[in-house]
Formats: sequence, C-alpha cells, structure tokens
Amino acid sequence: MYEQRVDAVRRNLASRDLEQMLVCDPRSIQYLTGVYAEPGERFLGLIIAPSIPPTLVLNALFTAPADAACAVRSFTDTDDPLAIVEELCDPDAPLGCDKNLPARFLLPLMDRGAAAGFVLASEAVDDARAIKDDAERELMRAASATNDAAMGRFRQLVHEDVTEADVAGQLEAIYRELGAQGHSFTPIVSFGANAADPHHEPDDTPLASGDVVLFDVGCRRDEYCSDMTRTFVFGEPTEKQREVHDTVRRANEAARELVAPGVRFCDIDAAARTVIEEAGYGPYFTHRLGHQIGLDVHEPGDVSAAHDAPVEAGMVFSIEPGIYLPGEFGVRIEDLVLVTDDGCEVLNSYPRELTAVG
Amino acid sequence: MYEQRVDAVRRNLASRDLEQMLVCDPRSIQYLTGVYAEPGERFLGLIIAPSIPPTLVLNALFTAPADAACAVRSFTDTDDPLAIVEELCDPDAPLGCDKNLPARFLLPLMDRGAAAGFVLASEAVDDARAIKDDAERELMRAASATNDAAMGRFRQLVHEDVTEADVAGQLEAIYRELGAQGHSFTPIVSFGANAADPHHEPDDTPLASGDVVLFDVGCRRDEYCSDMTRTFVFGEPTEKQREVHDTVRRANEAARELVAPGVRFCDIDAAARTVIEEAGYGPYFTHRLGHQIGLDVHEPGDVSAAHDAPVEAGMVFSIEPGIYLPGEFGVRIEDLVLVTDDGCEVLNSYPRELTAVG
Repeated sequence: MYEQRVDAVRRNLASRDLEQMLVCDPRSIQYLTGVYAEPGERFLGLIIAPSIPPTLVLNALFTAPADAACAVRSFTDTDDPLAIVEELCDPDAPLGCDKNLPARFLLPLMDRGAAAGFVLASEAVDDARAIKDDAERELMRAASATNDAAMGRFRQLVHEDVTEADVAGQLEAIYRELGAQGHSFTPIVSFGANAADPHHEPDDTPLASGDVVLFDVGCRRDEYCSDMTRTFVFGEPTEKQREVHDTVRRANEAARELVAPGVRFCDIDAAARTVIEEAGYGPYFTHRLGHQIGLDVHEPGDVSAAHDAPVEAGMVFSIEPGIYLPGEFGVRIEDLVLVTDDGCEVLNSYPRELTAVG
Repeated sequence: MYEQRVDAVRRNLASRDLEQMLVCDPRSIQYLTGVYAEPGERFLGLIIAPSIPPTLVLNALFTAPADAACAVRSFTDTDDPLAIVEELCDPDAPLGCDKNLPARFLLPLMDRGAAAGFVLASEAVDDARAIKDDAERELMRAASATNDAAMGRFRQLVHEDVTEADVAGQLEAIYRELGAQGHSFTPIVSFGANAADPHHEPDDTPLASGDVVLFDVGCRRDEYCSDMTRTFVFGEPTEKQREVHDTVRRANEAARELVAPGVRFCDIDAAARTVIEEAGYGPYFTHRLGHQIGLDVHEPGDVSAAHDAPVEAGMVFSIEPGIYLPGEFGVRIEDLVLVTDDGCEVLNSYPRELTAVG
C-alpha cells in the first residue's frame, strides 16, 4: 500500500519535471510510510529521490516501527538534520518542497545550495491523498458514524446556565467512550450571539433561554477525521431563528444535491451561496463552503469560488454554509460528503431540522 | 505595553540591518498586538515596517478586538493575502522572515520579488519574548502553581487496571476546575515500559503493580504555559527503580542549583548530564535538558550542549533530565525555573522524592 502511494507521488513529481521532494507534513509522512510523529520545532522530513528508498530524517526522540515503509536516518538534538537532507539531495536538480516547510529549514537549505531551485510540490502528495482508497473510505465512514452518535450525546449536555467551556470539556470523554481517540480539532461550542463568530472559542458564557446552541465538532478515529456542525435552539425558536436555520439547511441541501464527479468546486459553493443570497443573507455568509478532509481535518482543495477544478470520485469534503448575524446569533449546518461514481454519499446522517434542546 | 514590545523588535531588527519583518507565529503576533488567531492553512501575518503601524493581515473569519494594538487589513477566502503583504513591503529592502513562515507563502513572495532578499529574523521577536516582564512572571508563576495543584489530583486517578488513555482523558476537566483554560500540550501519561519512550502517547495499556507512572503535563492559564513531569511507582518500587529515580532527581537538582545569570545553557545541560553519566546511565538520557517556555510551551533557546549562550534574568525554561531503559521503564523529573538577578526561582514546588501511588 505505502509503495503504491509513493509510486503515485513519484509519478506526480515527474509530471512536474521533478525527481526529488522533501515532505515534512506529519500526516503526509504517515500516509506515505505509516510512521507518525509530531516533531514540534524539531526537524522531520521524508526525502523522495531517485535510486534511494523513501528516507525519513527523524529525531532520536521518536522510534520508527520496525516495519516502517521507509529507510530511517536518525539524529539527536545536537546533530544537524539539514546536513542529512543535503547529503540525500541532488544539488544539481530542483527540489520539490512541502507547502508547510518552515522558513527556518527552507532558507538554510537554500543558503547551502542543497538543490538547484526550490519549488512548491505538495500537490504531488496532496493529489494522491485527496482520492481516498477503499480502506480510507471505510475509515471516513466510521469516523463520521461516531460523530453522528456523539452529537446525540452532546445535545444532552445542554441545560440552563451551563457554560460553553463546561460543555466543551465533556466532549472528549464521550468520543473516547464511543471508540474514537479524541477530537480531530478543538471543538466549537457557541451559545447565542457567540455563534455569530464562526470560529468562536468556548468560554464562560452561560446558556440562556432562547439562545442558539452551535456544535462544530469532530473526532479522530483510527487516524481519520470527522467534522460536523449542527445548530439547535435552547427553548422555543423565534421566527427569525427558524427562517435563518431553514435557509442554511436548504443551502446545505442544494450543495449536497449537486455533488457528482465533474462538477466544479466553485459551482458547489455557488449552489449554497445562491440560496443564502436569495434569502437576503448573502453578506452574512463570510467563508468558503467547505474543505477536503481525511488524515487532516483540513486538507487542500477548498470548496470555494476560487477553486474551479472538478471534483473526483473518492474525494471527501465538507459542506458547511452558515449565516452569522453579529450581536444576534449564527447558524451553520455541516456534513461530510464522499464523491461516488455518480453522485455522493453523505457521511453524516444526524438530522438537520431545527429542534429545541434542553 | 505592546508598543514597547514592538519597539524592542524594531531595535532588534535594526541591529541585524533590517527594517521590515513578516511575523506569522500566532503567539508572537499575540505578544506584539494582543490579537490571537489560529489560522490553520489560511494566511496570518503581522508586517512590521518603517513609517507604518504594525499591520495585521487577517482572514475575515477572525475579528480583531477594537482595541487591538495594530492596524488590520482583512481579506476573505477568495482574496490574495500575499498581495497585501507585497503592498506593505519595500521591494528594495530585505525582509526579515518568521522562522515558521511556510514555504507556501515564502516561495510565492520570493517569486513576486516582494523584497530584496529574505532572511530569518525570528530572533528579533524571540529575544524579546525570552525575557519575561513582571506581568508575565506573575502569569508564569500562576500557571505552574495550578500545575502543582493539579499533579496532586492527577496521582489520585491511578488505580489497578486503569488505562493511560482513561487517566489522560480526565486531566483537562481538573485543570479547568482549578482555573486553567486547558492543556498547554497533549499530556503524556506512561505506565511501565511505555515510560521508556519519552514522547509516548497515552494508549490502552492498563496499569499493573510495580509499574512506574509518569505524568508529563501542563496547563495554559491566562495564555501562559506550565510544564512539569513527575514519576511515581504503583506499588513498592524495586531497587533499580529507586536508583534510577534518585539519579534523575539528583541530576534535576544539580542543574537547578547552577542556574544564574551568565551561566551558559550548555553548562546547565552538562551539570545534569554528568550526574547521569557518572551513575552509568549516560546513553539512556537521549534528549536535551530543557526548553524555554512562555506563551508557547516550547520557545526557542534549548537547554542543550549545542547552545552556548548565557542565561539572562527573566528567562523561564524547563529542567527535565530523564533515563529511559527500553523494555523496562523510564523516569523523568521536570521543573520550570525563572532566572532571577542572582540565581533562579523554581516555579514548581510539587515534591520530587519517589513515592508510591495507588
């Protein structure tokens, strides 16, 4: 499996006239080798180059499993890992660079002349990662099924005067009980006007009657990520809450119904955006419609007006329209979809209709 | 306060013959402006340049507070944030770059000729951040006091057959009860032979009699980080566990006693390492002695053989010697120290002596 993935990357590099690449994204390295390490400020890199096996330059703090699908070059905190990279690279050929390669490694490699030019080449890996194989599709389904089950538990945590932070602090234990390993991202739990900030962080705001309750949550299960948003109301919804919620729900539905191989990302974004604009809330939908997802919760390839490539079978991405009314409330409804040969499979089945909680 | 910090950075830049810099580390931006945002894959940058106020290039998803100590240039997901950077930079002068600036932004800025050269300049910010002012020292003390209190609670979670993941999942709620906002890093809870891997991730290993129990944990309180390690034994310690633990404790103590302004980081590292080497465990202490800490849990400036600068009053760093015996067990004892005018203040007071838990 790993060999096939590395071969795909080598082919993608060749089509860009490249033969060597430095991959440093930890999840890309996991995808290509099975080895996962979070290096923090330390160096971590996988060199893909002609006539050598994929070679991982790994701090001695981390141990690669004996069956790792790569060679390993270990270094300690007092060694110079860039010297190993330099040794493995051909200085007379350009080097493909991971999009996340930090300046503290990239600029010194340039100064040393480790390669004849440095070019962004993450797409060689990202394009491979974007098309989930059968095993990955199963894992994505399982992670989202766990997220559906968890949402049913999360809404039960809501009661008068509970704070966002209180609720947020209880989610991880529920994910673990359901068999996940934890959050795939810091959960968003927003009450009332806080929900008008799409990326609000849970704070000490207590829940009051009439507040919307927004959960944007996901778990990591067997390395793969889920991500879903539902918005409830604590008590009886107002007319405006109903209208906004219904608009967002219809925007979500319009986008899901359009998804099929060959349809462009920007058109899927437009399908949702048009519903919201026609309802008069266009200026209050302030972000892209969605993002791809897999080993990372955000993978390259926005669902946005700026991305006019067509979607392909095997891609998984979020559809998450929202309306944010500053000082009042916000609503977002998000599902993951897997593109199939003739449409899409929606990975979340948790109901989208507006319901009262508490 | 923010103005003084930015002035310090401008002075540090000038001493490197630089006038403009692109800061992208979220915690550095928070330090310089009071605005904190986690941009994920989106662009986030603070431009410091002559004759303009510090200017934050911020995705429209995030809202800067009205009293932010900077100008703000907002962009949406379909705008080009690098065009704003280009507009704010002088193309005829070199640009100081944040060490974490990712290749996906750095290489396009180079291609566009946004500046006359790109040089690593994070030290201009990092050197300012390294010396904690009085307000920061208070916050560092408070975060570590909370960590001390939490450790007393954490050890009570330990009982026969509990798993590492079970224990780890309960820590955040305790931190929150004690007034912290959550973890400052993913906690390490290691039982028995798992503790021989310094960065072991909590898994389903159940606790058995005679296991060491290692907690490497920290909280974030009012934005500042704590970080402490203690190693216990579940049941009666063996002679070897006692000997190794005592060696690590003496190594920790030897390093703490040496800390004072003017002493070199490498000599502090050596003080601990010598104790461990003389006890015959040198090859089993496989990492640097420590790291600086503040708004980030790992800040630049290792306590290691490779860092021969002297420590200065106001710096805060960890002292965390360890001995890791593969297949057997591991011991690490970690404290934070604040360098004072004539020595150091140890921010952790939780006992270091070997005690049995459970």
